[in-house]
Amino acid sequence: MIELQGVSILSSPFAADGSAIAAVESAAGDAAFRGQNPVTGEWLEPAYRTASSEQIEHAVGLARGAAPVLGGMPGRHRGQFLRAIAERLEGLVEPLVERVGQEAGLTEIRVRSELGRTVMQLRMFADVIEEGSWVDARIDTAQPDRQPLPRPDLRSMLRPLGPVAVFGASNFPLAYSVAGTDTASALAAGCPVVVKAHPAHPGASELVGRAVLAAQEATGMPAGTFAVLFDSGIAVGEALVRHPSIQAVGFTGSLQGGRHVFDLAAAREQPIPVYAEMGSLNPVFLLPGALAARGAALADELHQSFTRVSGQFCTKPGLVFFDGNEAFRERLCALTRQTAAGCMLHAGIARSFAAGIESLRTASGVEALVVPAATPTAAAAGACLFQTTVGQLLENRHLAAEVFGPTTLLVRYERLEELIAVARSLGGQLTGSVHAETTELAEAQPLIAIVAERAGRVVFNQFPTGVEVNNAMVHGGPYPATTDSRGTSVGPAAIRRFVRPVCYQNFPDAALPEELRAANPRNIRRLVDGQFTS
Amino acid sequence: MIELQGVSILSSPFAADGSAIAAVESAAGDAAFRGQNPVTGEWLEPAYRTASSEQIEHAVGLARGAAPVLGGMPGRHRGQFLRAIAERLEGLVEPLVERVGQEAGLTEIRVRSELGRTVMQLRMFADVIEEGSWVDARIDTAQPDRQPLPRPDLRSMLRPLGPVAVFGASNFPLAYSVAGTDTASALAAGCPVVVKAHPAHPGASELVGRAVLAAQEATGMPAGTFAVLFDSGIAVGEALVRHPSIQAVGFTGSLQGGRHVFDLAAAREQPIPVYAEMGSLNPVFLLPGALAARGAALADELHQSFTRVSGQFCTKPGLVFFDGNEAFRERLCALTRQTAAGCMLHAGIARSFAAGIESLRTASGVEALVVPAATPTAAAAGACLFQTTVGQLLENRHLAAEVFGPTTLLVRYERLEELIAVARSLGGQLTGSVHAETTELAEAQPLIAIVAERAGRVVFNQFPTGVEVNNAMVHGGPYPATTDSRGTSVGPAAIRRFVRPVCYQNFPDAALPEELRAANPRNIRRLVDGQFTS
Repeated sequence: MIELQGVSILSSPFAADGSAIAAVESAAGDAAFRGQNPVTGEWLEPAYRTASSEQIEHAVGLARGAAPVLGGMPGRHRGQFLRAIAERLEGLVEPLVERVGQEAGLTEIRVRSELGRTVMQLRMFADVIEEGSWVDARIDTAQPDRQPLPRPDLRSMLRPLGPVAVFGASNFPLAYSVAGTDTASALAAGCPVVVKAHPAHPGASELVGRAVLAAQEATGMPAGTFAVLFDSGIAVGEALVRHPSIQAVGFTGSLQGGRHVFDLAAAREQPIPVYAEMGSLNPVFLLPGALAARGAALADELHQSFTRVSGQFCTKPGLVFFDGNEAFRERLCALTRQTAAGCMLHAGIARSFAAGIESLRTASGVEALVVPAATPTAAAAGACLFQTTVGQLLENRHLAAEVFGPTTLLVRYERLEELIAVARSLGGQLTGSVHAETTELAEAQPLIAIVAERAGRVVFNQFPTGVEVNNAMVHGGPYPATTDSRGTSVGPAAIRRFVRPVCYQNFPDAALPEELRAANPRNIRRLVDGQFTS
Repeated sequence: MIELQGVSILSSPFAADGSAIAAVESAAGDAAFRGQNPVTGEWLEPAYRTASSEQIEHAVGLARGAAPVLGGMPGRHRGQFLRAIAERLEGLVEPLVERVGQEAGLTEIRVRSELGRTVMQLRMFADVIEEGSWVDARIDTAQPDRQPLPRPDLRSMLRPLGPVAVFGASNFPLAYSVAGTDTASALAAGCPVVVKAHPAHPGASELVGRAVLAAQEATGMPAGTFAVLFDSGIAVGEALVRHPSIQAVGFTGSLQGGRHVFDLAAAREQPIPVYAEMGSLNPVFLLPGALAARGAALADELHQSFTRVSGQFCTKPGLVFFDGNEAFRERLCALTRQTAAGCMLHAGIARSFAAGIESLRTASGVEALVVPAATPTAAAAGACLFQTTVGQLLENRHLAAEVFGPTTLLVRYERLEELIAVARSLGGQLTGSVHAETTELAEAQPLIAIVAERAGRVVFNQFPTGVEVNNAMVHGGPYPATTDSRGTSVGPAAIRRFVRPVCYQNFPDAALPEELRAANPRNIRRLVDGQFTS
């Protein structure tokens, strides 16, 4: 059912002038690599190749040529493209279930659910750009008689930045990868996208990449709108970030990787925005009243939150503050001990998880509550649970390092004031959660305020795992959760990461973009002389 | 009338806990420096001192303490503060006319006009935060029965980043300085501000700084809300940008200075946003039909645009493309020759201007149309005019370097296609202007599209000097015009540079910020379940 060919690049067959320049795929790249089944250890066919410098230049050159065409067309035209991608992906459920299962060890239910989210995101961005108001049109009309000087007609709207490089995540091979939220929002904004596929799932990347290219051709998008480059290492990604035609970067991955990309982008002659979503501890603060009133339920929900899909979520709670409540702790230990070992996304993540567990197991001041005897592997990683105190955590900052996988660190506090101090000591987070009884709310408020200063999303009496795709969602946060706290990578607002405002002064109506014309032919919401219209 | 004391720091007299910690001003800083009258060369009393490390730490420490208080109070309270600053500045018209005249050689009319703009900006941001909708409140209500999982209640709004460092500009001692647009927008957003005063106008900075501090005290703002630090060099600014408690930077100045600030900020453990507005060539494209139909008027307007206030605007046109139209050129030469030598803001700018003129005068392929015999000085800098060709400009990129002052470079083209090539070769710009007859519009459209890709503001049949303060204005643009093309430093949207979105999940209504509560007590416009309300 799956027909994969192993490629180094997936790109347009035609140059911007219509001449044929290269095959859709090419096997002419550098070093070969394969996906690996994390459960069986089997190396998967076919072999993929690292894209060559010429292939990178080819993809980015086409993207540069496509940028003005893509940015200049009506949003509804790009909307057709996004819907065509969604439709093609829906036709790939079975191949993707098979291949993602092989490459990342994810279950059929999970792959179907993630694909559903991916398709939903594409259609959501299509809705946004077909409706059109997202361009934030602002009009201040001329006042020729104003004293001492006439006021000119000024009209501004958001315009695409240009070609965007997207680094796919390993833990969401669909929803944050080749046609995931970064790609969908950048294309929606009118930016061509060059994806650097994650080497852990080249087959899924090829399947999705071909679907996007087919949709590109079917809906008449310009050559260079989209490309996928393969890479066994980091050279292709580095070359993309350094390329003068790349104008922004979307990245989901580790702190080390994201910071490297940020540093490369900042060192360019022309620095560019980098939206790197990196690690997060997602601290959870359990107040005494909540633990006393519903400690068992909290243990159940926390266990689910940190062990689901082997804890491989960027919103997994990694630090849990509690008052020493014994019933809660006992139940959490029991649940953790009973957790079946799950598989990890790939061997590299399993190794990092094993190293993180070993580091905590041997750290002074840390009690290993649950550590399975077997060393974690990609095929089977058991859930772990550790405990320390606020004092130890404040003294040993390395205890507050993210361990990606099914483990969390309980941190015992004696007094609520300790929580204030420790919350202040934490860096930026994607999420921070507080569980409290209504009667504890007044006491909890200073803590909530500090968490809100450090997180993109503050959660009350729920756990942070699970990221809704809607207007109010903020999936982001201060550094080191991301390199740019001003954006969200999830929800319609993600489109705003790839645009800048452009103002048109004193233009004849016919020479303006449709969105800014007097008659408002797109019928969008606009701010006209200080009042919202339509 | 002016009572200046010469200080190294202007800061809060009280610590956050109310205890007195330092005098409002201090003469305990390092190296002394004075303002200088650019017309007479006279060194002005009193002497100012470079702030010491302890003073920097003091100011930033107080700002860090003030941040949650300032960010947590209702916008209308901060609005009172901004209005109180405006009112106090209006009481300083005469001292400011005198001191800015002495320090920067600006005329009374100009100082009054710039002060009017400064006061207007403060009140505009007060309007914005008193009304309140700027926080972009988004609410997606809970759906407890949704399958397969319930949807949680999610509510997000924009929240302040924290303490902001502002670098005052030399060419706008009021509107882009101590209480200028960066300071006003950051305070409006709820961010404490530490200003690094420009060493060319310490007296004006002291006058304005004292007014802000008096307003701070009168309206009950927390200690640390605002401070001014003085510096004869760049060490204080560097220390501010590196300080871990500073969370964003506003800067107006040179490319070299802005890039240095950007590099320091990007190298921090926690990188922070830098909004540096730097140089711009503001290219002007004059099409043949426009030149033929109204060459004389174009010469008049261009002359006014590049010589006003000795050409010391960041929107001064520095490159003007024309078809060789002789009548236009002759008139422009005559007007330039007749221009009275004006004074420059300070000796450093005069030296840079002289060097830029000398470089153009001796460049091969450049014709010096008008170069006064006298070398430019701060007291008297005559207007200059040079001419080259598109071919020369494309070959010698150094010809496309900004020369700040009363000069511009005419660039002769032979064919319209040349304009496309040269427009593509230019870096980011604050503005780009096209003058064309209606009959030339179709031909001009590709050029306009390229200019729009490279500029924050595209101007049709007008000149770019003069920046309106309103919703549609974009004062910004791609690098090297700014370090962040996503923002504008002028207009209500400038407030968005200093905030990030924060999402609250599943919160009890009473624990939410007012802007997100069910009853909408602030009566602001919100996006609720996909629909705008109120």
